[in-house]
Amino acid sequence: MLDTLKITVYRANLDLVNEGLVIQTWGNVSGRDNETGLIVIKPSGLSYKSMKPDDLVVIDMEGNVVEGKYRPSTDAPTHLMLYREFASIGGIVHTHSTYATSWAQAGRDIPAFGTTHADHFYGMVPCTRKLTEYEVHKEYESNTGKVIIERLGIFDPLAVPSVLVNSHGPFSWGIDAEDAVNNAVALEEIARMAFYTVLLGQREPVDKYLLDKHFSRKHGKDAYYGQKKEK
Amino acid sequence: MLDTLKITVYRANLDLVNEGLVIQTWGNVSGRDNETGLIVIKPSGLSYKSMKPDDLVVIDMEGNVVEGKYRPSTDAPTHLMLYREFASIGGIVHTHSTYATSWAQAGRDIPAFGTTHADHFYGMVPCTRKLTEYEVHKEYESNTGKVIIERLGIFDPLAVPSVLVNSHGPFSWGIDAEDAVNNAVALEEIARMAFYTVLLGQREPVDKYLLDKHFSRKHGKDAYYGQKKEK
Amino acid sequence: MLDTLKITVYRANLDLVNEGLVIQTWGNVSGRDNETGLIVIKPSGLSYKSMKPDDLVVIDMEGNVVEGKYRPSTDAPTHLMLYREFASIGGIVHTHSTYATSWAQAGRDIPAFGTTHADHFYGMVPCTRKLTEYEVHKEYESNTGKVIIERLGIFDPLAVPSVLVNSHGPFSWGIDAEDAVNNAVALEEIARMAFYTVLLGQREPVDKYLLDKHFSRKHGKDAYYGQKKEK
Amino acid sequence: MLDTLKITVYRANLDLVNEGLVIQTWGNVSGRDNETGLIVIKPSGLSYKSMKPDDLVVIDMEGNVVEGKYRPSTDAPTHLMLYREFASIGGIVHTHSTYATSWAQAGRDIPAFGTTHADHFYGMVPCTRKLTEYEVHKEYESNTGKVIIERLGIFDPLAVPSVLVNSHGPFSWGIDAEDAVNNAVALEEIARMAFYTVLLGQREPVDKYLLDKHFSRKHGKDAYYGQKKEK
Repeated sequence: MLDTLKITVYRANLDLVNEGLVIQTWGNVSGRDNETGLIVIKPSGLSYKSMKPDDLVVIDMEGNVVEGKYRPSTDAPTHLMLYREFASIGGIVHTHSTYATSWAQAGRDIPAFGTTHADHFYGMVPCTRKLTEYEVHKEYESNTGKVIIERLGIFDPLAVPSVLVNSHGPFSWGIDAEDAVNNAVALEEIARMAFYTVLLGQREPVDKYLLDKHFSRKHGKDAYYGQKKEK
Repeated sequence: MLDTLKITVYRANLDLVNEGLVIQTWGNVSGRDNETGLIVIKPSGLSYKSMKPDDLVVIDMEGNVVEGKYRPSTDAPTHLMLYREFASIGGIVHTHSTYATSWAQAGRDIPAFGTTHADHFYGMVPCTRKLTEYEVHKEYESNTGKVIIERLGIFDPLAVPSVLVNSHGPFSWGIDAEDAVNNAVALEEIARMAFYTVLLGQREPVDKYLLDKHFSRKHGKDAYYGQKKEK
Repeated sequence: MLDTLKITVYRANLDLVNEGLVIQTWGNVSGRDNETGLIVIKPSGLSYKSMKPDDLVVIDMEGNVVEGKYRPSTDAPTHLMLYREFASIGGIVHTHSTYATSWAQAGRDIPAFGTTHADHFYGMVPCTRKLTEYEVHKEYESNTGKVIIERLGIFDPLAVPSVLVNSHGPFSWGIDAEDAVNNAVALEEIARMAFYTVLLGQREPVDKYLLDKHFSRKHGKDAYYGQKKEK
Repeated sequence: MLDTLKITVYRANLDLVNEGLVIQTWGNVSGRDNETGLIVIKPSGLSYKSMKPDDLVVIDMEGNVVEGKYRPSTDAPTHLMLYREFASIGGIVHTHSTYATSWAQAGRDIPAFGTTHADHFYGMVPCTRKLTEYEVHKEYESNTGKVIIERLGIFDPLAVPSVLVNSHGPFSWGIDAEDAVNNAVALEEIARMAFYTVLLGQREPVDKYLLDKHFSRKHGKDAYYGQKKEK
């Protein structure tokens, strides 16, 4: 079942490795089937090298395995929390990519320091609060989703398609798995630039009017970047 | 039309990716045809992987599309401002390359810290002032060109073939598209070295007489680097 | 003799190069044969490019060459000290990988700054004290093993599978040579992240309860990361 | 003439590119023929991609071109100064490799922070004084050699086979061109580690007795690293 989605999510998982966002088994991608609401997700701990599209696991929105011979990613409950909260998203990526994770480990939001950032994220990439001891002991992975949602607050998840989990690493998402990977790639690069920018002494984010301009060049009804979408 | 120039500009665009200056669609190259004055430029938002030479757009100096099925890069008005101002240049590159962009985000000129810099840039690589809110709202891309020209001032654009746009990233140029890419590559590397040099505590630029010596070894009538040009 | 182990250790040595942990001849891997207690180790100073599985040296636990036409790695006495002390380990890796070595050169433990670290190391990666002049002059390589054991103290070597030798570089180990390489790869990446994390101003390690959670997700009887082991 | 040496020096030049030490035409290698005392050196400004072994230039110790259709590297007078001063060296490399150049731009010696450094350099890698205005105007390239020799002082050039030229970049050498490249590779990596080590707060170099131990493990009559040399 969901063979096309499995191939999409499979390729998105391999893209994490090809883009240098993941070593060993430090990441996972999932995708949502819009018709059935079922989720296709990477199996836990499986090597990217040996993984095949059919190894991916199909789960329902409560986390029950619908199809697949493997356990789903241990982070599946985090993915499900986000899918339940954000109807607009169709793909989720979790990585421990180097620079984004370093910001998460420092417990700091990534400021919007320039137009590269503004092209992809409407404002800073926020970092969650730390989970409490109770939240870690009881349903840790679901609570990871909870603090992401709490931190994102009223923002449109497609306008700020990444959050850093404190002491942990980034989660990114998008309209589908491929879009989510693109956002994870952009996140890592803007995290890297922001790191250098801070070391060069910058403390102030980009002017609000420049942030607005660049984000709206690429997103929303007045966007004029790229080619006209076919209808 | 302009098939040879299209292939040159096409290759120059791909070189940005091969040289590690561009990920996703974060950059563009244009080239000028000296006879007609027409410009060949990358289409907006098109993937480097799928782009073909015939996809490039031909525009005139007022920005009208003369040939091509795609919209030109949204940065085309910036390119045109520079071509109109600087008769000596035949190619322009815009990237968000990591280190040069970080200096731009910090709002800092890149000091000439050594002979590597001096071999390519006659003095610091200047960073523009920020655009005002009005300049961002009204003809943003043209005004980006305007502040570059304003910042370059009386300098020969071929002696300082790059400027950083504040909070944005670098523009580089040259006698043609290939030369512009070479300058963009050199810029990124000297931006990287300058970053490390600053962290190692250096605050003073290279001695003026050493800057003069190295620049004049490679450029101008007394240059003795390289081989004699064929006539 | 030990042909299978030789191939395993040979591949593990080449993996150091492929993973970017070693340039020139700056590293070595050994593996222990559980039945005979013999050790297979890289020859000293041999190029990774020209090395063949049969070039590996077989030594006994006193360091006598049992088979092989080459001298064993000069670090062999360090490996042997660790094998003698830690019955649970079957493979050892020594590298001068960039970030781990920089922490060693700074004489600093690598703090556990996040879950990436906690997934692989139960607490900080400790750095040894410096060797005394006497310890360097007399049996230097054995004494290197001695300070590693001294620093690891009561910790389970498989829970903290790496130590930094002060002013020198990292040693990593595991249940076999392949596992040891995986730990060396993880060490280098967490050393890199920790470096950036420190520069971003973080001074405090991850909460103890989050460290416990992530380590126990992957290790020990209650682990639920990955797939059920076949019996 | 000197066809074997030309191939050696040709390959050594390409190795600079393959090892990531050189972009564009920012580097050169030369080698000395022990019988005739003639030098084979890279032509000035020639692209590494199109260069062939026969393009290399043969010069004598006064810098006269003995064979070759191209001009020799503009840095040839620096190479010649070093060959004349140091009878023991048979190959010289000049690069603008990123980290070594950054230390040179900062005007700082690279401290011996650990055993990786000590395996290759017996003590710090020294940085020259700046050239005076007169030295830059009159015989700049020869004077570059002069300040290198001045800075190296009484040290054995094969014990400290690299010097940083202030505001410029590194020169490395060795018993032949290949050895010189190996030293340039080691230099860049120890420059990189030293940069990170400094940022992690280390100010003190490695203990003298550990420096002595590691250097003498690999060099000199009591060396026991590597395999016995065939006679």
